Amino acid sequence: MTQKIKRIALLTGGGDCPGLNAVIRAVTRTAILQYGYEVVGYRYGYRGLYNNDYIPLTLDTVSGILHRGGTILYSSNKDNLFDYQVEEDGKMVKKDVSDVAIENMKKAGIDALVVIGGDGTLTSARDFSRKGVNVIGVPKTIDNDLAATDVTFGFNTAIDIATEALDRLHTTAESHHRIMICEVMGRNAGWIALHSGIAGSADVILIPEVPYDINKIAEKIHQRQDAGRPFSIIVVAEGAKAKDGEVVVSKIVKDSPDPIRLGGIGNKLANDLEDIIEGHEIRATILGHVQRGGTTSTYDRILSTRYGVAAAELINEGKFGNMVCLKGDDISYVSLEDVIGKDKNVDPNGELVSMAKKIGISFGE
Amino acid sequence: MTQKIKRIALLTGGGDCPGLNAVIRAVTRTAILQYGYEVVGYRYGYRGLYNNDYIPLTLDTVSGILHRGGTILYSSNKDNLFDYQVEEDGKMVKKDVSDVAIENMKKAGIDALVVIGGDGTLTSARDFSRKGVNVIGVPKTIDNDLAATDVTFGFNTAIDIATEALDRLHTTAESHHRIMICEVMGRNAGWIALHSGIAGSADVILIPEVPYDINKIAEKIHQRQDAGRPFSIIVVAEGAKAKDGEVVVSKIVKDSPDPIRLGGIGNKLANDLEDIIEGHEIRATILGHVQRGGTTSTYDRILSTRYGVAAAELINEGKFGNMVCLKGDDISYVSLEDVIGKDKNVDPNGELVSMAKKIGISFGE
Amino acid sequence: MTQKIKRIALLTGGGDCPGLNAVIRAVTRTAILQYGYEVVGYRYGYRGLYNNDYIPLTLDTVSGILHRGGTILYSSNKDNLFDYQVEEDGKMVKKDVSDVAIENMKKAGIDALVVIGGDGTLTSARDFSRKGVNVIGVPKTIDNDLAATDVTFGFNTAIDIATEALDRLHTTAESHHRIMICEVMGRNAGWIALHSGIAGSADVILIPEVPYDINKIAEKIHQRQDAGRPFSIIVVAEGAKAKDGEVVVSKIVKDSPDPIRLGGIGNKLANDLEDIIEGHEIRATILGHVQRGGTTSTYDRILSTRYGVAAAELINEGKFGNMVCLKGDDISYVSLEDVIGKDKNVDPNGELVSMAKKIGISFGE
Amino acid sequence: MTQKIKRIALLTGGGDCPGLNAVIRAVTRTAILQYGYEVVGYRYGYRGLYNNDYIPLTLDTVSGILHRGGTILYSSNKDNLFDYQVEEDGKMVKKDVSDVAIENMKKAGIDALVVIGGDGTLTSARDFSRKGVNVIGVPKTIDNDLAATDVTFGFNTAIDIATEALDRLHTTAESHHRIMICEVMGRNAGWIALHSGIAGSADVILIPEVPYDINKIAEKIHQRQDAGRPFSIIVVAEGAKAKDGEVVVSKIVKDSPDPIRLGGIGNKLANDLEDIIEGHEIRATILGHVQRGGTTSTYDRILSTRYGVAAAELINEGKFGNMVCLKGDDISYVSLEDVIGKDKNVDPNGELVSMAKKIGISFGE
Repeated sequence: MTQKIKRIALLTGGGDCPGLNAVIRAVTRTAILQYGYEVVGYRYGYRGLYNNDYIPLTLDTVSGILHRGGTILYSSNKDNLFDYQVEEDGKMVKKDVSDVAIENMKKAGIDALVVIGGDGTLTSARDFSRKGVNVIGVPKTIDNDLAATDVTFGFNTAIDIATEALDRLHTTAESHHRIMICEVMGRNAGWIALHSGIAGSADVILIPEVPYDINKIAEKIHQRQDAGRPFSIIVVAEGAKAKDGEVVVSKIVKDSPDPIRLGGIGNKLANDLEDIIEGHEIRATILGHVQRGGTTSTYDRILSTRYGVAAAELINEGKFGNMVCLKGDDISYVSLEDVIGKDKNVDPNGELVSMAKKIGISFGE
Repeated sequence: MTQKIKRIALLTGGGDCPGLNAVIRAVTRTAILQYGYEVVGYRYGYRGLYNNDYIPLTLDTVSGILHRGGTILYSSNKDNLFDYQVEEDGKMVKKDVSDVAIENMKKAGIDALVVIGGDGTLTSARDFSRKGVNVIGVPKTIDNDLAATDVTFGFNTAIDIATEALDRLHTTAESHHRIMICEVMGRNAGWIALHSGIAGSADVILIPEVPYDINKIAEKIHQRQDAGRPFSIIVVAEGAKAKDGEVVVSKIVKDSPDPIRLGGIGNKLANDLEDIIEGHEIRATILGHVQRGGTTSTYDRILSTRYGVAAAELINEGKFGNMVCLKGDDISYVSLEDVIGKDKNVDPNGELVSMAKKIGISFGE
Repeated sequence: MTQKIKRIALLTGGGDCPGLNAVIRAVTRTAILQYGYEVVGYRYGYRGLYNNDYIPLTLDTVSGILHRGGTILYSSNKDNLFDYQVEEDGKMVKKDVSDVAIENMKKAGIDALVVIGGDGTLTSARDFSRKGVNVIGVPKTIDNDLAATDVTFGFNTAIDIATEALDRLHTTAESHHRIMICEVMGRNAGWIALHSGIAGSADVILIPEVPYDINKIAEKIHQRQDAGRPFSIIVVAEGAKAKDGEVVVSKIVKDSPDPIRLGGIGNKLANDLEDIIEGHEIRATILGHVQRGGTTSTYDRILSTRYGVAAAELINEGKFGNMVCLKGDDISYVSLEDVIGKDKNVDPNGELVSMAKKIGISFGE
Repeated sequence: MTQKIKRIALLTGGGDCPGLNAVIRAVTRTAILQYGYEVVGYRYGYRGLYNNDYIPLTLDTVSGILHRGGTILYSSNKDNLFDYQVEEDGKMVKKDVSDVAIENMKKAGIDALVVIGGDGTLTSARDFSRKGVNVIGVPKTIDNDLAATDVTFGFNTAIDIATEALDRLHTTAESHHRIMICEVMGRNAGWIALHSGIAGSADVILIPEVPYDINKIAEKIHQRQDAGRPFSIIVVAEGAKAKDGEVVVSKIVKDSPDPIRLGGIGNKLANDLEDIIEGHEIRATILGHVQRGGTTSTYDRILSTRYGVAAAELINEGKFGNMVCLKGDDISYVSLEDVIGKDKNVDPNGELVSMAKKIGISFGE
């Protein structure tokens, strides 16, 4: 490719994820130190692209952010410029404003755009690429459920936090002979529950990919009790569901205005188990947003840095329309056309689940 | 005192609390190494005293437990031997079985009993003392709400965990311009919320001692927004309540079988704020039992060890009927007769609250 | 007092210490929000006062620094403006340049100065106070060895880090039946060694206040071995010394240009013990500067914030020439005239040392 | 294979490493729960095999050890039964006592042996395999320098600890404008330095694979200073060496009896840099054994568990003489004949080093 790159831009979209700042730093440092580009960052994801809201990114701007969670560029959810809510004649209407964004980039002299985000954000990245924008994607999902890459950053930090919580719950479970339920992230994929469950010495792991039978969970608890272990730890992904197809939310709140918030799977499970188990106190903990924030783990800092450097390299090589990814232990890239909508779920017959069963972990089957 | 002590016993009662094992270890080591006592531990609190369920405590038994949360003696809630549920003639009746416990101790040759527990557990300790048992109490409440001692162990660990959670929530709040609510322990006293809120850089702290006005909270959030800080962190003690006396539980679940579990103050606050605040996403995290477990903090290990050694010393000196306590930075003791039912609440006009206000923290007043 | 305060300044002097930023933040926020002062910060301690090198401190400047170690104002060691090295006629000479500093403050409209530092820094603070400058001192020593206050910030963070290191060394010691020596900070006072040693389950604690006999340490190690515990953990303060008055540094390096760096007490002890103990591998770890940095502990964040607010309050009340301090659990203040050169050492007969001995810890006596 | 397995044994050899207990637990649980084997553990590595010193491993024995560093089976260094020091006729002689070990296993009814260890330990494992013993190897090296497997357990924990130390040193470096040197493990391979250096935002990384030029390091420090960053962080692997082939140990101690202990590369570097750099204080921290111990990281707990389950599976399948390994993200195995003496070094031209250079990290070349 012949175009000379002088100025590039970054934006972060979707939910926050430990490692975003590390990517921003790595792209910026490589672009400046290695290739002599100028770098700017659009704020609040695509919204900033539409509003022409950007800041310069320099070596100073990205100093001291490697380990910090969140994103110094802020983020926004659900801002799709190809179907964007704008006011027209006093009414809110949805329209395609992508050309406004492209015009903004032209005026600002942006030669290439690095988009860091999940499935939704990357879909727009692909669409901008189709319209001729020089786009590089960087995958971001704390759930690790993207088929196009072996590991996503943020995941390791999340399982570290979930595992530490399980370590803490263990001491209470053991001292009080309780059933402790810990609900972790994972609406569609059970990776966080699976990994933290194995690392946190859980007795039962419930994931969306393996619908559970409440009676099998009770059976496991009773088995443990009979073996002199009158306490159990259950890790449940927020998207886990019962075999009988019953809705996730607890019956007692399902008519409420916001049943998910109040009656997530963790609480439902506690209620359901209390009905069929005797002599055990059951407590549910909903980890929630603490899984996403704070200090980025060592592993994620390195992975994010590798992604960021690779994104800058792809720009230098003119390989646009691609997303950086990890294959085995190698950094690689894949066309944005091939990544959208392709999830990676836990294989119920794969090595990790099989292994977990061999050491006695029940999946509620 | 004339009785020669040869054998002492320990028991732990009530909810678990980081530092229990450190107390057990310190009593045991001091008793054995310093005074040559034999030591046993009743399991499951007073229930073990009634069931004569005890184990020997040796230097080996207490090796490696200093830093571990929970209690190697297990615990139980609500076992009051002076009003104990037993089966008689096929029916469950409540009766005073304290004499059975005393008889058990006599048979086992127990010359003194160290009781580690909260208000309920210590009430029984006092009652046993009144009946002539050589009792020493050690205060335990993670909420730090006991008037008779300046600090209780477990509290420092709890605020460490809560503060770390707030640190994590900060990054998400800032990246997404969100209101993050964190519900921490504290049914009657707001110490954990107050301390972790100050340490975790909260914008609003809600505690039972200062009833809040939801509009004042909204005002604070709007003030911050106007000052260019479109995110806020709210720490709320589980026992916090609104000024208008409204019940804690959310309206939408108050008719449910278990409203507290589903609709605690954290979720209620999120719902209520959403009604009066615009343009902010609000998320609630309920820390729950992770605040009680895991590795005991440095501070709590030292405090628990001091308590444990002091308890053994009181036995040696024959000063029974007392509870060890901390006054300023000195270990001391106080009569069990003087400690029961005396709570220590946050003083709304005290130094800590005043100080917090001076750096801009709102208490929702 | 009649003078109306409009503008105040801060500076930090001496070695860095977790909590410095928390003090800076608390002074700044209280000054601005509560009293409407302007706030500036001199950079690099007194050197900045001499060079007139200061920056404005606003709510934005101090945002996000509560938990961060180090000092955003930087620091410098050994800059005494009353005996300062300056160039005159091409030669370096020492002279009193305090009047330059006072003139600088006048020109900058500084009505009061908050000085955060240790003994040396506070000595200058007192001297400026004597010359009529409105000074408030805030005590800073990670070693907790200042007589005028019960606790100094940074100390809790330091013992947290040292204790975590001891926890780590324990697993190796136990697996390999080794003697692990951990050298911690404390040139004159053994507080860090004493607290972390108790919390980290050390077998031997060596502090400057209790000169040790190497044979007694060996005796303790052999006793443990005979009791089936063929490993030991020794915590040693960098200023610990042997009873026979022998110099701290190892013989084998005492003629080297920098014996302290190479042959600190930790390594010396390892060498000396190897000569008189058989069948044990001995390993020394020198914790060094990792004890000073990183994230500030919960306890220290609160204490530093209390100090900072109190310093701003003293300014408002016109109570100059004083240093804030902690007495029991109360924030108070004391005249700078009464604090200089007054150290607080571990009492070899005090409660903590006695308590440690009762649970079997040896002090090498 | 036809032999029916009834009883298996484990042993751990060499230096301790976070994850050893997780492997022991996983082998034991899989063997008991999945295959119905009895399991025993030899204590102190091969020495226990020679002395017939073993303990039963049950579900109870391995309960609660998943996260704990060290090894419940203890370990020993340098015990090679094929060249073992024994007393004969009052003299210490070296002889092959492997047949004694084999005889011991026969008498104890051991059908298969799982050996967890590094190069030395696995060499003996191969030799026992050659003599017909049913051996499975599990690789252990905290340095991650084994060619036959992509990742070894313990490595992730080590870089977590080293990175946290670097985070701490950063605050001091920045506050005081210092050069902070951190010496980490890695005698032959620089993996720990490389990974922790990238994650801990180091400015210079020195590894055995890339001999350094002290002047280039000084150059980097001066460049940073000129760019307004008057502080630098240097991570150095203990086996790093200068280009000119100079010995690692500092000149000032090279004639001492134990130069390595006193004058490791970290201290040497500090001395050498002080000679050629002005106006900077330089401080060295030697992390040492704290890198090996304590709580095992989430990543390592999972990897160790996978290794342990795979080892038990190989026994069940009769695939003896092999070592479990990780290839990409898949658990696999390789013949013990093919693993000995094959190291994995950092490729000076590989992706990680190149990437690090692109973000501005110097390797002292």
